[in-house]
Amino acid sequence: MRSPAMHVISAASAVGLLLAASMPGSAQQKSDPKSLEQHKTSPGGKYEPSLDVLGGSKLEPPGAKEGVPTLSPAEFQAANQLYFERCAGCHGVLRKGATGKPLTPDVTKPLGFDYLRDFITYGSPAGMPNWGTSGEMPKDQIELMAKYLLNEPAQPPEFGMKEIKATWKVTVPVDKRPKAKANKIDIDGLFSVTLRDTGEIALIDGATKKIATVIKTGYAVHISRMSASGRYLYAIGRDAKVDLIDLWMDPPQTVAEIKIGAEARSIETSKAKGWEDKYAIAGAYWPPQYVIMNGDTLEPLKVVSTRGMTYDTQEYHPEPRVAAIVASHFHPEFVVNVKETGQILMVNYQDLDNLRVSSIGAERFLHDGGLDSTRRYFLVAANARNTVAVVDLKDRKLVRLIREKDGIGDKPHPGRGANFVHPKFGPVWATSHLGDETIALIGTDPVKHKESAWKVVQVLKGQGGGSLFIKTHPKSKNLYVDTPLNPEAEISASVAAFDIANLEKPYEALPIGQWSGISVGQRRVTQGEFNKAGDEIWFSVWNAKDQESAIVVVDDRTRKLKTVIRDKRLVTPTGKFNVMNTRKDVY
Amino acid sequence: MRSPAMHVISAASAVGLLLAASMPGSAQQKSDPKSLEQHKTSPGGKYEPSLDVLGGSKLEPPGAKEGVPTLSPAEFQAANQLYFERCAGCHGVLRKGATGKPLTPDVTKPLGFDYLRDFITYGSPAGMPNWGTSGEMPKDQIELMAKYLLNEPAQPPEFGMKEIKATWKVTVPVDKRPKAKANKIDIDGLFSVTLRDTGEIALIDGATKKIATVIKTGYAVHISRMSASGRYLYAIGRDAKVDLIDLWMDPPQTVAEIKIGAEARSIETSKAKGWEDKYAIAGAYWPPQYVIMNGDTLEPLKVVSTRGMTYDTQEYHPEPRVAAIVASHFHPEFVVNVKETGQILMVNYQDLDNLRVSSIGAERFLHDGGLDSTRRYFLVAANARNTVAVVDLKDRKLVRLIREKDGIGDKPHPGRGANFVHPKFGPVWATSHLGDETIALIGTDPVKHKESAWKVVQVLKGQGGGSLFIKTHPKSKNLYVDTPLNPEAEISASVAAFDIANLEKPYEALPIGQWSGISVGQRRVTQGEFNKAGDEIWFSVWNAKDQESAIVVVDDRTRKLKTVIRDKRLVTPTGKFNVMNTRKDVY
Repeated sequence: MRSPAMHVISAASAVGLLLAASMPGSAQQKSDPKSLEQHKTSPGGKYEPSLDVLGGSKLEPPGAKEGVPTLSPAEFQAANQLYFERCAGCHGVLRKGATGKPLTPDVTKPLGFDYLRDFITYGSPAGMPNWGTSGEMPKDQIELMAKYLLNEPAQPPEFGMKEIKATWKVTVPVDKRPKAKANKIDIDGLFSVTLRDTGEIALIDGATKKIATVIKTGYAVHISRMSASGRYLYAIGRDAKVDLIDLWMDPPQTVAEIKIGAEARSIETSKAKGWEDKYAIAGAYWPPQYVIMNGDTLEPLKVVSTRGMTYDTQEYHPEPRVAAIVASHFHPEFVVNVKETGQILMVNYQDLDNLRVSSIGAERFLHDGGLDSTRRYFLVAANARNTVAVVDLKDRKLVRLIREKDGIGDKPHPGRGANFVHPKFGPVWATSHLGDETIALIGTDPVKHKESAWKVVQVLKGQGGGSLFIKTHPKSKNLYVDTPLNPEAEISASVAAFDIANLEKPYEALPIGQWSGISVGQRRVTQGEFNKAGDEIWFSVWNAKDQESAIVVVDDRTRKLKTVIRDKRLVTPTGKFNVMNTRKDVY
Repeated sequence: MRSPAMHVISAASAVGLLLAASMPGSAQQKSDPKSLEQHKTSPGGKYEPSLDVLGGSKLEPPGAKEGVPTLSPAEFQAANQLYFERCAGCHGVLRKGATGKPLTPDVTKPLGFDYLRDFITYGSPAGMPNWGTSGEMPKDQIELMAKYLLNEPAQPPEFGMKEIKATWKVTVPVDKRPKAKANKIDIDGLFSVTLRDTGEIALIDGATKKIATVIKTGYAVHISRMSASGRYLYAIGRDAKVDLIDLWMDPPQTVAEIKIGAEARSIETSKAKGWEDKYAIAGAYWPPQYVIMNGDTLEPLKVVSTRGMTYDTQEYHPEPRVAAIVASHFHPEFVVNVKETGQILMVNYQDLDNLRVSSIGAERFLHDGGLDSTRRYFLVAANARNTVAVVDLKDRKLVRLIREKDGIGDKPHPGRGANFVHPKFGPVWATSHLGDETIALIGTDPVKHKESAWKVVQVLKGQGGGSLFIKTHPKSKNLYVDTPLNPEAEISASVAAFDIANLEKPYEALPIGQWSGISVGQRRVTQGEFNKAGDEIWFSVWNAKDQESAIVVVDDRTRKLKTVIRDKRLVTPTGKFNVMNTRKDVY
C-alpha cells in the first residue's frame, strides 16, 4: 500500500503546495520563498566602475568541479526523467524552488550526498515525502537522485512554435464535424470529470448520472474548460497536452490535440462579446510561456514567453510559470497569472500580430482565482505570500492586495472561489486555505457596499487545514468547503456546509466519504461542483489508483445524499466541470 | 599605426555591421543570419509522445567534455574580459552571433583550435579583423581566446533593479539646481558632440563654435538625447552608463548618473503632451532589457526584459538586444526596437505599475530609424534583412515591410533618416546603405500621395557603400549622404550633396576632409547635423585617437566651407546632436 505522502505527491499541482515545507534542518522554519530570492540575487554583486562589466571576476569557469560526482550520460538521462516525474512539480524544472525548496548546487553541496540521500529516503514531517521508506523509490534511484542534485541543473529544451506545431493534429477537420448537435446529450448539463491517474476525462450526464463517454487525454489532466457556446471542451494535462473535444459529436470525441510545452496547468477560451469560441489559450510551466490557438482546431497562432522581471525587486526570473488563466468578459482579453514574477498579464487578443499586453504587478506566487459575481473583478491568490490580489479587468488595474494582516489566512487556495450575497456585507467572494481552517470572505461591491469592498469582512472557521475548494451557486443557500488534504482521515472525507443566511451558526460536517459506501482508502473528498440547475452539488471521493473512487451527489436544499456514482471507469476522479457553470463562470 | 580594420572594430555599433561577413570557409558565402536560427532550433527535436517531456535523452550531462581545453579561473576571467572588449559587439555577448557569426562550441569545435587561432591572427577579407598581424592582440591572448571559444559560453550576470540602483548617483539634487537658466548659452543652438575614444562629450556653442565645456561620460558614448524642454541632456555609453546633464547650470554639468546594464546603445525621453521631461528610457544589449527612469534624477523606476519569441518563427531568443528607441508624439509611449526578435514594442508609460506594451512583429535585426515629417509614422531599418519597417504610432500597427524587392538596398542604415518634400512624390523619408551606394526614398504621405506611400519612389546613387548617415532640414534644399566606412580614402573623406529640387542631377562631392585642413589619417567624414536655424550643416572629421580630428561647418545655401572647428580636446568626434533638432525630432 502507498503511504499518504505518496497520494500527495501524485496529486495535482494544488496538492504540491503541502510540500512547500522544508529541507533538512528547517523543521522549525516556516516555508519561506525568500530563500529563493536570496539565492537569485547573490550573483549580482556590487557596482564596480571598471570595464569588468560582464562580471568575469564573478563567473565560474565551465568544466568539471571538485566534489561533484559525475554521471554517465545514461545515468544523467534517467535522473533527469526521474526528477521531472517526482520532484519538478514542487522544486521547479530548473530546481530554483517554487512551493518546494531550491535544489541548486549552492544549496545541495553544503548538505552533501549522505544528507540528501537520507532526506529523500525518510522525508520530513513538514511535507517532503519519504520516498525510500514508502517503497516508492528503490535505493539505487535515491542515490542517483542525490548525485544528480549535486550537479548543475540541466536547462531543459525550449519548445517554440516549431516544436509545438510538430505535435499538432486535427483528427476531425472542421468540415467533417456535425453542423448541428448530433447526440441527445444535454450538453449544458454535462460534467467533465478528470480521471487523474488514468490520463482520461469522463463525461457524465447531469440528469442520468451515467457516464456518456470516457476520453483519453494528456497525463494527469489538470482542468477542463468550455468554449463560450459550450460546444467545445478543452482539457489540459500536466504534460502540456491539450485535447479539444467536440461535444456535438455522437459520442463526443477528440477532434484535435497539441502539446504546448513540457509541463502545463492552465487553459481558457475567449469569452468577450463577438469573440465566443474563437480562441483558446494554454499556459505552460516549462517553457515559461503561453500559447494562443484557434478555438476549433487548436492551430497554434502565437507563442509568448513569460520570462522577465519580478514585480517587486525587478530582477530577472528565468522560469516564471503560468498559473491560472481566465477570460475577461469586459475586453477581448485573457488574464494570465505569472507565478514567480507576480505579474498579472492582460493579453488582448484582438490583434495577434500587434499583441497588446498590460502587465499588472501584483504579488509573487500567483496561483488560482476567479471572477466576482459582476465578472468585472478578478481575485487571485498569491498563496505562498498569504495574499489575495484584486484586479479590475475593465480598467486593467490592480485594485488592492489583501494581506495576512487584513485577514487572509495561511496559503489561500480558492480554486475559482465562491460568490454569494452576505446578509450584512452584500456581495462577497470567499476563499478557503491550504494552511489553516479559516475561510476569508471578501467584499466585492465597491458601489453599494463601499465600506466592505476589498476587505476581509468575516472569517469563518471550517473543519481544518488542507482545503482546496470552496463552492456555492447563485441559487444555493449553502457554502461548501472541502478539506481533502487534511491529515485527519475523517476530516479529509467530509465537507463543511455553512448556512449563508446565518454564517455565525457552526458548519454542518457532511460525511461524504461515508455516504459514498466505500470503506477502504483515504477517501479524500474534494471539489464540490454544482449542476446546471444549481440544486445539486457533486463531490469527488478520491482514492488511490488501485482503490475504488466515487462521485457523491448531494441535494443542495436538504444537504442529504441524493445518489452515488460508482463505476469501474471512475479511477481517481478529482476536478469536475459542469459545462454551463464553467462556460458562464458561475461559481 | 593601427590598421584600418582596427578603426572599424573600435567604432560605434553601426560600424560593427561591416564585420557581419564571415567565418573561415565562408568567403564565398554571404553573411546569413539564418545560421543562427539553425543553431537555435536544433535542440528542439521531434515530438515523442512519451514521458520524456524534458528531452532528457537529448541533453548532454554537465561536467568536463572530451576535446575541450580547460582554462584556469584566472585565464577564463581574462578571456571573458577580452571577449567582451573585442568580440561581443559583433558576435554577441552570449556568442550566439549577431552581425558577426555565432561562436558557440557547435560551430567552433569542428573548426578546432589551430583554425581559430589562425583566423583570429590573420582575419578575413570579408571583415574579420586581423587581430594578430595588426599587432593589436599578442600571440598568448589569441591562443587564450581560441581556447575560450571552444568552451561553453559563460552566461554573464543579470543586472536587475538592485544592481542598477547600486550604480545610481544624484550628484546635484533637483533642489540644488538653478531655478532658471544660469548661463548665457543659447541652449537650443548647442551641439552635443560625442568624443568617442575619450569617453566624453563636448558641448559646442552653435553660434560661436566654441567648446562651452567637455564632460566626462560613459565609455564610447553612443548617442545624446535631450528632454522635450531642452533643459536636460542624456548621454549613454556603450558600457550602459547614462549621464544626465543639466544645461541650465553654468557651466552645464552632470547632475546624475546610472548604469542600466553591461552594454547598451539607446536612450530617449518622454515627449508626449503633458509628459515632457518626465521620463527617460534606456535600452541595453546585455542584459536584454530596457529601463524607465525619472527624467530629472535618473531614478530607475521600471526594468523590463526583452527576452522572448522571435516574431516569425516564434522561437525563444535568450538575448534580444534593444536597438533604437524613439518617443511617440501621439501617445505617451516609447517605441523600443528589439533587434533579434524583430519586435517593435510600444511601451506606454502612463502607468508604470500596470505597464501596457504592444508588440508589433516587424522584422529581425531592427537597428535604427526615425519618424516621418508628421511624426505619426516610424521607419526603422532591419539592416541584416535589407528591410525598412513602417509603424503607425497612432494606431500602433505595422503599416508595411519594404523589402529588397521593393527597392531597399544592402543593409539600410538611416540613422534617423532624412525627411523632405520630393518635387514629384511629395513627402519622403530617405535612407542610405552600409552595403551599397544607393539611397532609397520612401513616400510617407498616405493622404495626398497615396500611390507613393510606403513605396521606394526613387533610388539615388551616392558615392559608394559604407554610408552611416543621411541628412537634410526643412529649410534646406540639399540632401547630404556620408560614406565614412567606404574603403576608398577619398570617398570616406567626402560627402555627397544632392539637389532636392532636381534629384536627377548628379551629386556634388564636398571634400570635407580636405576642407578640414588635416592632412594625416583616414579623415572619415561622418554624421552631418544641422544647426538650429537650418542654414549650416556640421560634419565630423573623425581620425584615430592619436591623430587630429575636426568639425567642418558648411554653409547649406552655398555648399561652401564656412569654418573649421579644431581643438585639442576634439578627440575622435563622431555623433553630434543639436539640442533644438534633437528635442523636436527635426531630421
